[in-house]
Amino acid sequence: MDAVTAFAPATVSNVACGFDVLGFALHEPGDEVTAQWSESGVRIDAIVNDGGRLPREALKNTAGVAAAAVLRTIGERRGVVLTIRKGLPLSSGLGGSAASAVAAAVAVDGLAKTGLPLETLLSCAFEGERDGAGSAHADNIAPCLYGGFVLVRQANPPDVVRLPVPPSLTAVVVHPDLEIETARARALLGTTVALSDAIRQWANLGALVDALHRGDLSLLARSLEDTIAEPRRAPLVPGLALIKQAAADAGALGCSLSGSGPSLFALCDGMATANRVAAAMRLAVTAHIGGAPETYVSPIAAQGARVVAPCAS
Amino acid sequence: MDAVTAFAPATVSNVACGFDVLGFALHEPGDEVTAQWSESGVRIDAIVNDGGRLPREALKNTAGVAAAAVLRTIGERRGVVLTIRKGLPLSSGLGGSAASAVAAAVAVDGLAKTGLPLETLLSCAFEGERDGAGSAHADNIAPCLYGGFVLVRQANPPDVVRLPVPPSLTAVVVHPDLEIETARARALLGTTVALSDAIRQWANLGALVDALHRGDLSLLARSLEDTIAEPRRAPLVPGLALIKQAAADAGALGCSLSGSGPSLFALCDGMATANRVAAAMRLAVTAHIGGAPETYVSPIAAQGARVVAPCAS
Repeated sequence: MDAVTAFAPATVSNVACGFDVLGFALHEPGDEVTAQWSESGVRIDAIVNDGGRLPREALKNTAGVAAAAVLRTIGERRGVVLTIRKGLPLSSGLGGSAASAVAAAVAVDGLAKTGLPLETLLSCAFEGERDGAGSAHADNIAPCLYGGFVLVRQANPPDVVRLPVPPSLTAVVVHPDLEIETARARALLGTTVALSDAIRQWANLGALVDALHRGDLSLLARSLEDTIAEPRRAPLVPGLALIKQAAADAGALGCSLSGSGPSLFALCDGMATANRVAAAMRLAVTAHIGGAPETYVSPIAAQGARVVAPCAS
Repeated sequence: MDAVTAFAPATVSNVACGFDVLGFALHEPGDEVTAQWSESGVRIDAIVNDGGRLPREALKNTAGVAAAAVLRTIGERRGVVLTIRKGLPLSSGLGGSAASAVAAAVAVDGLAKTGLPLETLLSCAFEGERDGAGSAHADNIAPCLYGGFVLVRQANPPDVVRLPVPPSLTAVVVHPDLEIETARARALLGTTVALSDAIRQWANLGALVDALHRGDLSLLARSLEDTIAEPRRAPLVPGLALIKQAAADAGALGCSLSGSGPSLFALCDGMATANRVAAAMRLAVTAHIGGAPETYVSPIAAQGARVVAPCAS
C-alpha cells in the first residue's frame, strides 16, 4: 500500500511587529504526517507524541480537516488514513497545529501525485487551522508551507509575500516549560486597540520589510517592537522583560514572544551571536520560570514543508 | 542684505494604508519662504496668497516656529524675517503647513550657510508642525524635505526610511473646491480602532513596502486600501466612492484621500494612464462636488525642498 510522509517545520509568527501577518520557518523541530489510501473519508489511526491530548476525530483535527480539503479540491473519491507524529510541543507558540495541517496537506497531495500549487495547499491548510484549531489567520501555515520569511497580506483567498532574508539572520527559539492555550492568549487582546499603538505597529512593520530588503540589520533591530500583543500577553510569561533584556545584553537584534507564547524568539546577526543569545535566554528562562527550556538555534529555513518518504510500497 | 528663498513641495500623506507614517512628494505645487537676517527673533513680514487667514505671529505659524528652531539649533543670536508665498491651497490635504515649515527651515539653514543634516532640519520642521499646526506626525514634512516616497518609522527623534520608487509610478492629485480642517478630520477618527481593521492595515502597509522594493505594481495596487481613516472621513467628501470608482475604471492602481482630504490622489503605471485617470477623476469630482477642481499629474518627485534663490545681495 502506498504511503507518503511529509515534514512541516516549526514557525515563529507575529515576529514582534507583525501580529497575525508575519512569520518565518525554522529548520527544526517539526511534525510529520503519513498519508495512506483508504476506501473513503479521512481517518486518523495514530497520533504519536501528543500525550493523547489531540482530537482523534478527523474533522476536529487540523490535519484531518486539511487532508479532507485536499481530497475535495482534487475531486478524489478515495479516502486517506493519517498517522501524525508530533515533533512540536503542544501549546508552545511554535505553530504546532499549523505544522500538522500543512504536513497533512502536503502528504495527501504527494500521495495523489497532484502537485497542487502552494496557494491551493495553503487554502487547504488554512481550512485545517480555521476549522480544526479555530484560528483564522495564516501567519504560521504560510511560512510553514513556503519556508523563509513571509508576510500574509490576506489569508483567504491567500495573498502571500515572500520576503528576502539577509544571509546572516539567525533565529533563536527558547521554549519554557509552560503551556499557553492560543485561545486564552487571544482573549487577552480584546477587539480594539489604541490608534496610537496601531500606528506605531504599522510603522515598525513597514520598516521591518524595508530592512529585510536592504539587509539593514540596524533598522531591523529598531523595528522589532510589539505595541499590540506582547504588552497584553506579558503576564502569561513570568520574567518576560528580564528574559528580553538578557537577549539584548547578549547581542540580539530583538526578542519577543513566538506566536502567542510561551516560546520566545530572538533574531541575531550570525550564528556565534545566536549561540551566545541562546545561552543567555536559557539561563534567564531557568531563573524566572524554572525547568530546562528547550532551545533551538537556526538560520531562517528557506525550505518549508516537503515530502520526506514518498511512495514506499 | 542677504536673502535666501527655499521651495518646498506638496506631499501626499497616508497613501491609503500608511496613516500618519507614509508619504510622497510631488513636483508641484509648493510653498516658498524667503529668509533675511534681522536683529533678533523671528518675524513674518508678509504671507502672500493665503487670503489673510494664516497667523502672522511667528510663534503661531509653522514656518515661524521651524525658523526659530533652526536658529536655536545652530546657536545663532541674530533673528530672521520671513516672507511666505503659499503655492498650496489651504486645508487641501496636500501638506501645506508642512511645506511652509520645511521651506522656512531650509531657507534659514541656507541663509546661515550651516548645511544642517536632513535629520536635524526634519526635527526643526517637526517643531513647526507640532507647535504651529498642532500636528505631531511627520508623514508630510519627511517627504517634503527628503523628496521621494518615505516611511516615518518614528517622528521624534526622526527615523525615516527612504523607499525605492518604481520608475513608471505616476501620481495624480485632484483638489476639489472644498476645505477640510485637519483637526476636524482627525476628530472623526477617535482614539481606538478595531484590531481586525488594524491588522488589515499593517498587512497592506508591509505589502506596499515590498511592492515598492520589487516594482510589483500588481501587489502595490492590492495593498492601496485604507481600513482606518478613509471609512471614517468619507462623509467629508461627497461621492468619494464614485470618484474612486472612476479612477479605478480609468486604470488607476489605487485612489484614496490625500492626507485628511479633500484632495484625492491616485497612483498609476505611467504618464498616459495617469492623464486618463486625472481626466476621469476631474469629471467625477465636478459631477459629485461641483466646481473646477485643480489637477496635478507628476512622477513621484525625487527631490524635496531646496534653496531656489540663494544670497541675492
